[in-house]
Amino acid sequence: MDRLSALLTEDLTAVDAIIHQYLASPVGTIPNLAAHLIDAGGKRIRPLITLAAARLLGGGGDGPRKLAAAVEFIHSATLLHDDVVDVSSMRRGKKSANVVWGNSASVLVGDFLFARSFNLMVETGDIQVLDILARAASVIAEGEVMQLAAANDAETTRERYMAIIAAKTAALFAAAGKSGAVAAGRAGPEAIALETYGRELGLAFQLVDDALDYGGASATMGKNAGDDFREGKVTLPVIFARDAGDDSERVFWRRVVGGERTDDDFHRAVALVKRHNAIALTLDAARAHADAARNALKGLPANAYREALEALPEFVVERAY
Amino acid sequence: MDRLSALLTEDLTAVDAIIHQYLASPVGTIPNLAAHLIDAGGKRIRPLITLAAARLLGGGGDGPRKLAAAVEFIHSATLLHDDVVDVSSMRRGKKSANVVWGNSASVLVGDFLFARSFNLMVETGDIQVLDILARAASVIAEGEVMQLAAANDAETTRERYMAIIAAKTAALFAAAGKSGAVAAGRAGPEAIALETYGRELGLAFQLVDDALDYGGASATMGKNAGDDFREGKVTLPVIFARDAGDDSERVFWRRVVGGERTDDDFHRAVALVKRHNAIALTLDAARAHADAARNALKGLPANAYREALEALPEFVVERAY
Repeated sequence: MDRLSALLTEDLTAVDAIIHQYLASPVGTIPNLAAHLIDAGGKRIRPLITLAAARLLGGGGDGPRKLAAAVEFIHSATLLHDDVVDVSSMRRGKKSANVVWGNSASVLVGDFLFARSFNLMVETGDIQVLDILARAASVIAEGEVMQLAAANDAETTRERYMAIIAAKTAALFAAAGKSGAVAAGRAGPEAIALETYGRELGLAFQLVDDALDYGGASATMGKNAGDDFREGKVTLPVIFARDAGDDSERVFWRRVVGGERTDDDFHRAVALVKRHNAIALTLDAARAHADAARNALKGLPANAYREALEALPEFVVERAY
Repeated sequence: MDRLSALLTEDLTAVDAIIHQYLASPVGTIPNLAAHLIDAGGKRIRPLITLAAARLLGGGGDGPRKLAAAVEFIHSATLLHDDVVDVSSMRRGKKSANVVWGNSASVLVGDFLFARSFNLMVETGDIQVLDILARAASVIAEGEVMQLAAANDAETTRERYMAIIAAKTAALFAAAGKSGAVAAGRAGPEAIALETYGRELGLAFQLVDDALDYGGASATMGKNAGDDFREGKVTLPVIFARDAGDDSERVFWRRVVGGERTDDDFHRAVALVKRHNAIALTLDAARAHADAARNALKGLPANAYREALEALPEFVVERAY
C-alpha cells in the first residue's frame, strides 16, 4: 500500500485536488459534510487501483485522475448511505456524518457525490468507462439491498454471503481496475485481467474486514469490532462457527442474529468463532482471493506499477494479523 | 397533458416497458419497492417532455425512449429519497415506500434507480445527453440540501425560495427538454429553447404545487394539503403572506415555521394566506413562468408535438383551480 502510494504520490495529490474542486458548492453543508468523511484519512485504495492500472498500461494524462476521483466519489456516497442504513455513529475514528449533520443531509449529500462522480466520468469523454462504473453502481446498490434483506437471517449461507460481498464491495474494486485499463486504451485482455485483480482483491479485503470485526487473527478487538454482530449481519466467521457448532450453539446463533443481542452475547460469539477456528478459515479464504488477485496480473507488462499492485493483496491480508 | 399523452401513446407504452425491464433484479425488494412507486400512476410529465422534444425535432428511434425512462428513473430516485428526508407517509394516494419497506430500503433502491438511469443513458451512446443529466442530478441534490438548510427558517426570502425550486424541480424539467432535443441531433438553439421551456414549466409546476398545499385558488384542501406547513417549509404563499402581514402575524410565522405546529396553526396559516391574497399572487407568478415556457417554443417547427407542448403550461396552472 505504501509502495503504491509512494509510486503515485503526484497522481494522488492531483486526485485530492480534483475531489475538492468537485465538492465545491454554494450550499455549504455539501463540502463540509463530504470533506468530513473524505478528509478523514481513508486509504484511497480504490483510486490507487485505478491510477496504477492506467499507469501500468502506459495511460497518461489527466483522464485516469478524474476517473480515480470518480471512483472515490462513488465509494464515499455508499459510505454515507451505509452509515444511515446501519445507524452507525463512528467512521474512520470520528463521529459519522449522519450523527453530526443528520440522516437527511447524509442521504442528500451522498446523492450529490454520486452525481458528481458521473460529472467527472463525462469529463473523461469515455463512454466505455461510464458503462463500467454505472454498471458497478447498480450492482453495489443491489448488493446493499441483498445485505439488508439478509440481515437478521441466521440461516444465511456461505454462497449468499459471497454474493453479497461480491456485489457490495468487490464490484467497485473490479470496476476501478477495469476502468483504469480502459482509460489507458487497453479494453481487451488487460482490462479483464485488472477487473479480475480488482474483484479478487475486493473479496479478500471484505473477508479481512469481516474477520477483524471478530478480532482478526490475534483476536484483539479493534475499535469497530462487533459492529456486524450488533447489526445482525451474518458474515463468514459466523457461518463457519455456526456450521461447525452443536445444536445449542445453533440455537444461540439463531437467537442473537434474529433478535436482541447483548455485549455478553458478543463475547460468547467471539469465543465460539475462536473455538471453531472460524477466523483462520475466513483468512484462508481471504488469502485464496489475494493469491487469485496477484495471479491475475501475470500477463501484464512487468514494471514498478505491476510490482506494487502485486504486493497489495498481501498487505490487505496482513491487516488481519 | 391528455393531448400529449395521446400523441405519444406508443412511445409511453415503450417507455413503461423499458422501465420495467431495467427494474428487474434477482433481489426482489428492488422491483417490488420501485414498482410500488412507479406504477402508482405518476403523470410521467418529465418523460413526456423528453419524448415530445425529440419527436418535435424529428428525432426517431429508440434513443428518446431510453432517455425518457432515464429521466423518470432520476425523478423516482429523488421521490424515494425525498420521502425519507421529509418523513412522508403518503405518496400518490398510497402508503409511501419508506412506510412499507423502511427508510433503509428506500434509500438503497433510490440509489439503484439512480444508477440504472445512467445505465440507460450509456445505452443511448450519447455523451452529451449524459452530461446534461449528470449535471441536472448534481443540481437537484444541491437544491434538496438547500431546502433542508432552509427548513424552519422563517426569514427565507423569495429569492432563496426561487433558487431552491429552480434546483430541486426545474433543473430536471429543463434537462428533460434539452436532452430530448440533443437526442434528436439538435444541440443548438433548439436545445436551448427546449431547456428554457422545461425550466419555466418546472417553475410553474412547483409554484402550483406549493399553492395547492394551501388549498389552491378555491382554497379547497386536497389530501396532501398542509404537508409543507407541517415540515416547516417556507414556500411562496407563506412568503407573500408573511411580507404583507403585521407584526403579530410575523410573530406567528416565526413561531410556526421555526418550532412546533398544531392543526389549529395550519388553519390560521391558511386564513392569513387567503387574507393577503397570497395564493392568487403565487398563481400569478406560476402563470408568468407558464407563459415564458410557451413563448420559448416560438421558433421551433410547427407541428402537433409543438402544439401539445404549448398547451401543457396552461394545463399545469389549471390544476390549481
